[in-house]
Amino acid sequence: MQYWGHDGASWIERFETIRSQTESLCEPLEPEDYVVQSMAEASPVKWHLAHSTWFFERFILEEQLDEEPIDPRYNFIFNSYYRAAGVPHERSERGMVTRPTISEVQQYRQQVDERMRDLVASDEFDDHLASLFEVGLHHEQQHQELLLTDLQHHLFQNPLSPALFETSEFEHRVGSTSDLEWYPVDGGIYDIGHEGDGFAYDNECPRHEVRLYPFEIAERPVTCGEFLEFMRDGGYERVELWLSDGWETIQEQDWTHPLYWEERDGVWHRYTLSGWQPIDPAAPVCHVSYYEADAFARWAGARLPTEQEWEVASRGVEVEGHFSESQRYHPAPHRRDPDAPLQQMFGDVWEWTASDYAPYPGFEPFDGIIGEYTGKFMCNQRVLRGGSCLTPASHIRRTYRNFFYPDDRWQCTGFRLARDA
Amino acid sequence: MQYWGHDGASWIERFETIRSQTESLCEPLEPEDYVVQSMAEASPVKWHLAHSTWFFERFILEEQLDEEPIDPRYNFIFNSYYRAAGVPHERSERGMVTRPTISEVQQYRQQVDERMRDLVASDEFDDHLASLFEVGLHHEQQHQELLLTDLQHHLFQNPLSPALFETSEFEHRVGSTSDLEWYPVDGGIYDIGHEGDGFAYDNECPRHEVRLYPFEIAERPVTCGEFLEFMRDGGYERVELWLSDGWETIQEQDWTHPLYWEERDGVWHRYTLSGWQPIDPAAPVCHVSYYEADAFARWAGARLPTEQEWEVASRGVEVEGHFSESQRYHPAPHRRDPDAPLQQMFGDVWEWTASDYAPYPGFEPFDGIIGEYTGKFMCNQRVLRGGSCLTPASHIRRTYRNFFYPDDRWQCTGFRLARDA
Amino acid sequence: MQYWGHDGASWIERFETIRSQTESLCEPLEPEDYVVQSMAEASPVKWHLAHSTWFFERFILEEQLDEEPIDPRYNFIFNSYYRAAGVPHERSERGMVTRPTISEVQQYRQQVDERMRDLVASDEFDDHLASLFEVGLHHEQQHQELLLTDLQHHLFQNPLSPALFETSEFEHRVGSTSDLEWYPVDGGIYDIGHEGDGFAYDNECPRHEVRLYPFEIAERPVTCGEFLEFMRDGGYERVELWLSDGWETIQEQDWTHPLYWEERDGVWHRYTLSGWQPIDPAAPVCHVSYYEADAFARWAGARLPTEQEWEVASRGVEVEGHFSESQRYHPAPHRRDPDAPLQQMFGDVWEWTASDYAPYPGFEPFDGIIGEYTGKFMCNQRVLRGGSCLTPASHIRRTYRNFFYPDDRWQCTGFRLARDA
Amino acid sequence: MQYWGHDGASWIERFETIRSQTESLCEPLEPEDYVVQSMAEASPVKWHLAHSTWFFERFILEEQLDEEPIDPRYNFIFNSYYRAAGVPHERSERGMVTRPTISEVQQYRQQVDERMRDLVASDEFDDHLASLFEVGLHHEQQHQELLLTDLQHHLFQNPLSPALFETSEFEHRVGSTSDLEWYPVDGGIYDIGHEGDGFAYDNECPRHEVRLYPFEIAERPVTCGEFLEFMRDGGYERVELWLSDGWETIQEQDWTHPLYWEERDGVWHRYTLSGWQPIDPAAPVCHVSYYEADAFARWAGARLPTEQEWEVASRGVEVEGHFSESQRYHPAPHRRDPDAPLQQMFGDVWEWTASDYAPYPGFEPFDGIIGEYTGKFMCNQRVLRGGSCLTPASHIRRTYRNFFYPDDRWQCTGFRLARDA
Repeated sequence: MQYWGHDGASWIERFETIRSQTESLCEPLEPEDYVVQSMAEASPVKWHLAHSTWFFERFILEEQLDEEPIDPRYNFIFNSYYRAAGVPHERSERGMVTRPTISEVQQYRQQVDERMRDLVASDEFDDHLASLFEVGLHHEQQHQELLLTDLQHHLFQNPLSPALFETSEFEHRVGSTSDLEWYPVDGGIYDIGHEGDGFAYDNECPRHEVRLYPFEIAERPVTCGEFLEFMRDGGYERVELWLSDGWETIQEQDWTHPLYWEERDGVWHRYTLSGWQPIDPAAPVCHVSYYEADAFARWAGARLPTEQEWEVASRGVEVEGHFSESQRYHPAPHRRDPDAPLQQMFGDVWEWTASDYAPYPGFEPFDGIIGEYTGKFMCNQRVLRGGSCLTPASHIRRTYRNFFYPDDRWQCTGFRLARDA
Repeated sequence: MQYWGHDGASWIERFETIRSQTESLCEPLEPEDYVVQSMAEASPVKWHLAHSTWFFERFILEEQLDEEPIDPRYNFIFNSYYRAAGVPHERSERGMVTRPTISEVQQYRQQVDERMRDLVASDEFDDHLASLFEVGLHHEQQHQELLLTDLQHHLFQNPLSPALFETSEFEHRVGSTSDLEWYPVDGGIYDIGHEGDGFAYDNECPRHEVRLYPFEIAERPVTCGEFLEFMRDGGYERVELWLSDGWETIQEQDWTHPLYWEERDGVWHRYTLSGWQPIDPAAPVCHVSYYEADAFARWAGARLPTEQEWEVASRGVEVEGHFSESQRYHPAPHRRDPDAPLQQMFGDVWEWTASDYAPYPGFEPFDGIIGEYTGKFMCNQRVLRGGSCLTPASHIRRTYRNFFYPDDRWQCTGFRLARDA
Repeated sequence: MQYWGHDGASWIERFETIRSQTESLCEPLEPEDYVVQSMAEASPVKWHLAHSTWFFERFILEEQLDEEPIDPRYNFIFNSYYRAAGVPHERSERGMVTRPTISEVQQYRQQVDERMRDLVASDEFDDHLASLFEVGLHHEQQHQELLLTDLQHHLFQNPLSPALFETSEFEHRVGSTSDLEWYPVDGGIYDIGHEGDGFAYDNECPRHEVRLYPFEIAERPVTCGEFLEFMRDGGYERVELWLSDGWETIQEQDWTHPLYWEERDGVWHRYTLSGWQPIDPAAPVCHVSYYEADAFARWAGARLPTEQEWEVASRGVEVEGHFSESQRYHPAPHRRDPDAPLQQMFGDVWEWTASDYAPYPGFEPFDGIIGEYTGKFMCNQRVLRGGSCLTPASHIRRTYRNFFYPDDRWQCTGFRLARDA
Repeated sequence: MQYWGHDGASWIERFETIRSQTESLCEPLEPEDYVVQSMAEASPVKWHLAHSTWFFERFILEEQLDEEPIDPRYNFIFNSYYRAAGVPHERSERGMVTRPTISEVQQYRQQVDERMRDLVASDEFDDHLASLFEVGLHHEQQHQELLLTDLQHHLFQNPLSPALFETSEFEHRVGSTSDLEWYPVDGGIYDIGHEGDGFAYDNECPRHEVRLYPFEIAERPVTCGEFLEFMRDGGYERVELWLSDGWETIQEQDWTHPLYWEERDGVWHRYTLSGWQPIDPAAPVCHVSYYEADAFARWAGARLPTEQEWEVASRGVEVEGHFSESQRYHPAPHRRDPDAPLQQMFGDVWEWTASDYAPYPGFEPFDGIIGEYTGKFMCNQRVLRGGSCLTPASHIRRTYRNFFYPDDRWQCTGFRLARDA
């Protein structure tokens, strides 16, 4: 396993920061909110708190240092899908586990934190452990985002529509979205994938060449206003716009608009972590499936970019934007920056790409037990790029590959158009 | 609607007693335990607390006295199935509702309690209101039992098998169960159903005659020890013992023993509200479906009694036994009382009868909105008699008709044999 | 097993008649029509031809006389549910079996027919065999009806709506149905169940007393015209009219009218074995579930009769009416006969009763392997009485108990109202 | 739409040949065999005969020449998925349609054949019609293969295991399979996709460059003998070998061997169109899903080739092998040809590749109504290459892209290994 470099002081600092960020996300929660699981794909908050802790305990303290587990039963109930670490508890049953209680889980976090602090400060903390530690930090950041998306999904099931956060951030900004501009990229041979010594997941490697053809990519993601036009133009009723599996899905699921949307007194609203809010036409559309993104693109006479096209196009763009640190928790409206040909590439919404989530040529999974981290999901999923308003800024890279099933909608997922040049 | 007589003082007293009994059942719970729903048929504890309160508010304060609801949204989320009171929240979604919180629900209880106390003390509290109030008290008692059975089902889903109550009550008593004695009853014309001025549900009325043929009924319920013999004799594999629907059910569900049973190191245990305990061979078998009861009876060369046979046989027996007040929360082993020909008719376990849950001749539902209470369930269910160790003693009558589907097992359900004379 | 008397000559004659009746029902069929199974509950025509043959072979020739089976594999594929005869082929898979072909099955019928003829003519044919033979004849008659109901269900799935029989029988007769008359019956003790030496199924025995209360029963079944009034009065939208399970069923299944009904250009039609025909308002409504019958009765301020009430009311009525021999294959409109207080009790439509299908007091199943014939279905089903236009006349008795699940609609099922006197 | 060149005489000849090939495949069938549908994905033989005919009628005679349809109802029941041609009959219900009968469908074929012959002989038959005609011919060939795979699936459901064809072809040949040889291919820029003027589906175009890295590809497909080694080494129980979705699939489906396999008296057999036959260890393994192919590859320390790797590797190989014309209908055992570095690339088994079925850069669907032919399936499926023993030889090209879902197994699907150089 590759070693990405470390420095004792900063390890601790980053650990403390990331761990406490997780906990601070829970501040507006009542105890009741921690427990519930609204669907198999979404886990209870309490489980996220415990699982991200277990990851450090199981893969470093137990696996590498032979430490005794704090509670051996946790290896069963807080394992997600690492079968090399034992048979995990059934994913869909996580919401049944009211004990250990929240405070027991918080205690578990503190116990593991202490052990990890001791370890990082010790001589034992070599490059190999540091690598695993690094993975654990990124893993926790992933669960910060999932904690929020899962919570939103669960609160949405409540007919009382609870609001967790203040709503002052919401404004109505009717951005003119009709004058979409396109950014051209030349064809040629390009390098794709992680470069340099910094951390990356195994699925971003190895760096390799691809042959691209000339294309254009939209300056910004598709907006809610544009998506409303699609809806009003019969987008969900026109079979010719849809992939076969997409059409079947929207029929079975009765989808006629993005997840969390509802028309109230003639105005479209969406449910957010700050409760129901009117749609902002200039904000990126969000909580759409791959199928809806693909159908919109066909309606618009365009297509989705491949992940390679997205990555190449992103090269001139800084990795910055609305991430979770902005504490906004919903995508921001678009404001054109005359100096920036491409906007909102990072943050706001994950962008569906046309690419199947597949191994890069020469792909090698992480060594050992965490080799299951990304590789075994390389089938039936699509790559998303760029991070969202729920992703921690330090978690995202230009080469970062997120992946979800084409019918997943509970993540903060939008899209950007592309077309052949 | 019939009026069953009342007295100002005792109304209040009974109200306070029953309401506080509900709350005292929750004492060993953690906040996390209140929220979860383990299957559509079983509701969260918090919901039981709220729904039994809503019943008083909706059917008396609001319906009869035109009072404003404390929170109009509660009429949606805390209605169970009274469609005349509005469309209720989907039953299977009750576990999604983390807000209102437990303390908000407790506050709701207190607010309604205060209003009810005022009402009972007032001149407005006439016979009609008293009748509805009486129904509300019995309704709350039903939910006391359901609160416990639903909680046991939910905690059972937790791989950590939490125990709520102390375990000192469990003892091993190997009662000889082979010498089952039978109690004969003559054939003839018998009166069945509620008699006198006391309270009864509508489904126990009117009192009417039935023609019975001579039969014998077992002195006590079938025990765990006897049920183990059935299991060891291949009871779950012998198709000739089963009703057609029963066989299909045990194949689909992979049932090979009662719910909550598990063999551990050669000893059969069962999961109780006090955690895993060894089976007591002398205790009534519990958590079996009608199908299992029926198959056991066929194996034993007997049958289940009809509800009329059960009611007639019960006539010489006092309505007393192990009810929830004993705080045992599991059926007690059988101890033969030489002076009592029939034992454990009341309390310990609900007893499946062979009778379809059907209206008595001349049945009239309760007037008005609570007419939905029992009548609309008169299809596909079987009558159970006698109450269980989770039923409050004052809730049970000789003519009381409980009803569940033949494949329901999460209630405290056992059975007693009968045979033609 | 009881012996019902026999006479060599007439046995043969009845056998030939009944067997050839089965085959004559198939005359309008194309080979393609014999094979298909439209749902688990309905079997292919070819299977009915083979299964009714297998019944004679398996339970008489093989079981009683130790004859070698004609094809040992048939015991698997042509067994329905007699588990004492071996594990049967999965019911829902009967439509997958294209081989043996129709002509092979016809050959199988002929081979068994020959053996049976030889047996009946021989000295071996004693009372016990005659009893089984008698059951086999009635069994074949049951499958004559099922063959037609299953065929109608299957042809209905075809968007081309094939018609098997001529349509000349259909007429429009607007009978006045508003002046329904009621026939009163006194309360008292009545004998119920099969009487005398003739054949009856085990479930009609033993004859026994029941206590009935005074009631009135409608002179005729509910008509299509009356059912249309129920529909137009919002019958399918008014939750207060429905049993809880019934309401759930019509929601899940989207039922808004009887099976096989469709409104075409403002006129309600129904699909029959003679194709689409306009509804005859004076004909009994048909292809309704128990739930729909029960809801209609509640809407009409009445109820369904119990099976005992039905049987007692039928006593003055001859067992005659429109049976399958009339080759009409759909219920006939009502014509009031001033001399007959009760009409259409027999034939036309099976009448749902309010009674759970349960054993009579002292019930004993048939001996031996055919003991599974009726007893193991005594749960979750409702009794229907009187036979239908698809039942052979000689198959029906006053005490005959048919049974189906409350949500079954593909049989020729209607109903008649009753009410407390 | 591109025009691929035509010549009056040969059009007719090819039409007659291909149409009669379809019919000759049905020779061993009984009428009963034509009707049944064993699962939603597999259609009845009769439907294939009618649909491939409808394709010519609907897209040429009706769409292009405004001819009246022979039976307008056929547009509903014989449309597969061309929604621009109208809403099609529900795919899973095709087996319900016993009428039109087989002979009516055969008559329909003849009527359309006549019209098509007239058209081809006429002046109207221009390049555009010729292009559609060409598609129709290839379309019919696709259905020749599906007719056989669907038939095998359906006959397999029959517990009597009918055999359609003679069995003389089966031999036991224990080929040594341990000495698998690998064929190296250099990295570089390669052209991929259809080249030249001949016919190709739209999904094979446009020809374009890709960047490949050096790899090796196995000389032949994985054999049954090798797959048995995988099974014996616990292949189906070792979670680490499986994609996450693959593991879930084999758990849910209880897969422990390829479709159609069964161990009988210690010898593995497989069900073929010639009945049950012992496995030939030297024959390519067949009827495996993508998941099984992928797991085997991981077990073998290899991977599946991408479709581009497969296409590049195939360049030196003639497009010849065991196709349907060999009337073998099952894959032939491997015989090493010292002069051919790669064997069985074409025919025998379709080979799963690692590639998602996706549009080539610059992809344009066919014009008009048949634009739905291939494009709308470009999600969730994997590309297979090379054709099988059930594919007509003239249907296959080096660039031909077949596609199925990763869990599909009823096609003649095997695989070949690859590895990084």
